[in-house]
Amino acid sequence: MMMKKYILLVFSLIAYPLLGEIIAQENIAQKKAPFLSYEIDSVNTATFRILAKEAKNVAITGSWVEAGRQPMIQQTDGVWTYVQKDLPADLFLYNFIVDGVKIADPLNVYQIRDVNNVYNYFITNGGERAELLKTRQVAHGTLLKQWYTSSLNQAQRRMTVYTPPGYEQGKTNYPVLYLLHGMGGDEDAWSELGRISQIMDNLIAQGRIKPMLVVMPNGHTSNSASPGNSERGEYLITSFTPDIGSGDMESSFMEIVEFVEKTYRVKKNKKNRAIAGLSMGGSHTLFTAALYPNTFDYVGLFSAAFRMNGKVKRAVYDELDENLIKQRDYGYKLYWIGMGKTDFLYKTGEEFRKKLDGIGMKYTYKESEGGHTWSNWRDYIVEFSSLLFKE
Amino acid sequence: MMMKKYILLVFSLIAYPLLGEIIAQENIAQKKAPFLSYEIDSVNTATFRILAKEAKNVAITGSWVEAGRQPMIQQTDGVWTYVQKDLPADLFLYNFIVDGVKIADPLNVYQIRDVNNVYNYFITNGGERAELLKTRQVAHGTLLKQWYTSSLNQAQRRMTVYTPPGYEQGKTNYPVLYLLHGMGGDEDAWSELGRISQIMDNLIAQGRIKPMLVVMPNGHTSNSASPGNSERGEYLITSFTPDIGSGDMESSFMEIVEFVEKTYRVKKNKKNRAIAGLSMGGSHTLFTAALYPNTFDYVGLFSAAFRMNGKVKRAVYDELDENLIKQRDYGYKLYWIGMGKTDFLYKTGEEFRKKLDGIGMKYTYKESEGGHTWSNWRDYIVEFSSLLFKE
Repeated sequence: MMMKKYILLVFSLIAYPLLGEIIAQENIAQKKAPFLSYEIDSVNTATFRILAKEAKNVAITGSWVEAGRQPMIQQTDGVWTYVQKDLPADLFLYNFIVDGVKIADPLNVYQIRDVNNVYNYFITNGGERAELLKTRQVAHGTLLKQWYTSSLNQAQRRMTVYTPPGYEQGKTNYPVLYLLHGMGGDEDAWSELGRISQIMDNLIAQGRIKPMLVVMPNGHTSNSASPGNSERGEYLITSFTPDIGSGDMESSFMEIVEFVEKTYRVKKNKKNRAIAGLSMGGSHTLFTAALYPNTFDYVGLFSAAFRMNGKVKRAVYDELDENLIKQRDYGYKLYWIGMGKTDFLYKTGEEFRKKLDGIGMKYTYKESEGGHTWSNWRDYIVEFSSLLFKE
Repeated sequence: MMMKKYILLVFSLIAYPLLGEIIAQENIAQKKAPFLSYEIDSVNTATFRILAKEAKNVAITGSWVEAGRQPMIQQTDGVWTYVQKDLPADLFLYNFIVDGVKIADPLNVYQIRDVNNVYNYFITNGGERAELLKTRQVAHGTLLKQWYTSSLNQAQRRMTVYTPPGYEQGKTNYPVLYLLHGMGGDEDAWSELGRISQIMDNLIAQGRIKPMLVVMPNGHTSNSASPGNSERGEYLITSFTPDIGSGDMESSFMEIVEFVEKTYRVKKNKKNRAIAGLSMGGSHTLFTAALYPNTFDYVGLFSAAFRMNGKVKRAVYDELDENLIKQRDYGYKLYWIGMGKTDFLYKTGEEFRKKLDGIGMKYTYKESEGGHTWSNWRDYIVEFSSLLFKE
């Protein structure tokens, strides 16, 4: 009551910020939206709304929309709506398309960058796939943006590190999972789209995984950190060269392991090291684990890009077959492969499994519905992490 | 060359992601934009472009645009442009307005959330105000998302912590600056809009400040963490209640100090503690420092909201005058006040300085051009931090 009065007093003094679009004075007040731009009800029906009085066509695109886009319906007040029933439990992305321009929902600040698109996101209810992604009342680990000095391109490089609950207070040494992103990602990808803090916190709280560090380096050797954080200057992501196939990431990988083992309270042996990655990061994982064939006891390939016919002259690629045989002979606890049935990399994945069969290299194979999606990769990390460091 | 071939091979396998708007398969490729949506040349002329073939009116709004918005000019190819000459060295925010809908630049992933708006940002060139905000080739500190257990609303709360370069490797104990956000912010505000990692890294590298920890707690006691990270469920920021004037933040502040001093390698005495905040965080700073009158040797009020006539019955507010006198008598090294000439809080700031004059409480006063802006607050933190922990 008094608080309200005080807030009104403050608000009455600020004309400009309340107009919303004028930012010569910074915003200090909450924009009062005339409606909710998205609502998810108890049975996971989603309703979307956007005010676009002057627009002729408004559509929605979302990670559940098979047809790519669906038209929104214009109401009399200039608000366009779209209703989607029966969404499964998961995290979804969406954008609006207003007269041909694809935009983020102007009233929803829940946004995630994927590659060079910015999407709104929401999490539905009722199933483990969604519930593991939510911040719950459990002990939380810490997420760090950590720099390390690299031999690559004369720059320091950035990694994201998850330390488990109690790390700061205790004296225990932990095992480490190195977790690599795809061609469109960077060191932020697994913590943003991958919800790694929430997944780890929740799985640890449920006793389903061992407390571990998760180290998520930047996998683009042509740059060193996510947009806004690179020493090499701000780069336009539209002209950014992804780094797949140069061999630099794999060849320099032990820099990362050595830095982590010097800097964090971790166990420094093979049985306490796991490495996994999605798509391009799956390729990095496969070649790195083979190049250092007695280093990782746990290897995870999530919808991996298998560089079967690489022709760049780097030992890491040219000597794959010999390296895999060494890795087989040294032994390991788990070689885990996950792939979606409709993934565009399905065929190359099949070829790679044949190669493994040919040399008698054991692996665990998980085939999922769907394709090259974060929904699958989040499932994979839940399953893979529960198999780690079990003795 | 070979790398290109390989990338083409991968790209040829993915039809959907390249279309950009279809996200049933996640994006793995870079969107090839037909043009740059913003360009800053060597004399800080900015050119903005958006493709909006079907739009009737397109405008731009930016933190340098005094008139609120400026029309963009339609070119023959459906691209609308706007040119702004002679921008000073600074960080700027902007949005486009397409047929009345205010949107983020769809081709620019450099975005920052401020309150419940998402803006694109860019940093111009040539002056210290801009150069201190860039990630440079200097030693970098670490940024942590750290949880702590609070007595407030039965939830753990989140803070952002900056540790200086070398913290992980060394054994030194450091002084601490507690740095508080405004009504529209949360624990991410100072690291995002405030560019605190870049400012601290650069000032430390230049020898202008002492290496210190910067602790940035969430200042809204009605919630516990930024959107997407709250234990209390996802909240709609449009219906979120900012917490100014309840007295909870100030009254519980020593929880934060105790947690930091137990968890981090810091010096645990008054002469190694500073507290500062902007706007609502300035109010939190003022009342907290007075409530614990022998705790902080350095106090910084940046465009502070001075709650002169608060009527909520909390000791923290009711006993301000007595507390200030205690603080004066215990003594302190610096009481620093920064205010813009056109700030909407200028008058109340003037009244507060009269109050301090009335009780003979010394302070340093800095009056800036402009108003209630992040540009001023970034200037203030540069100046204030250079005065800290000097003996």
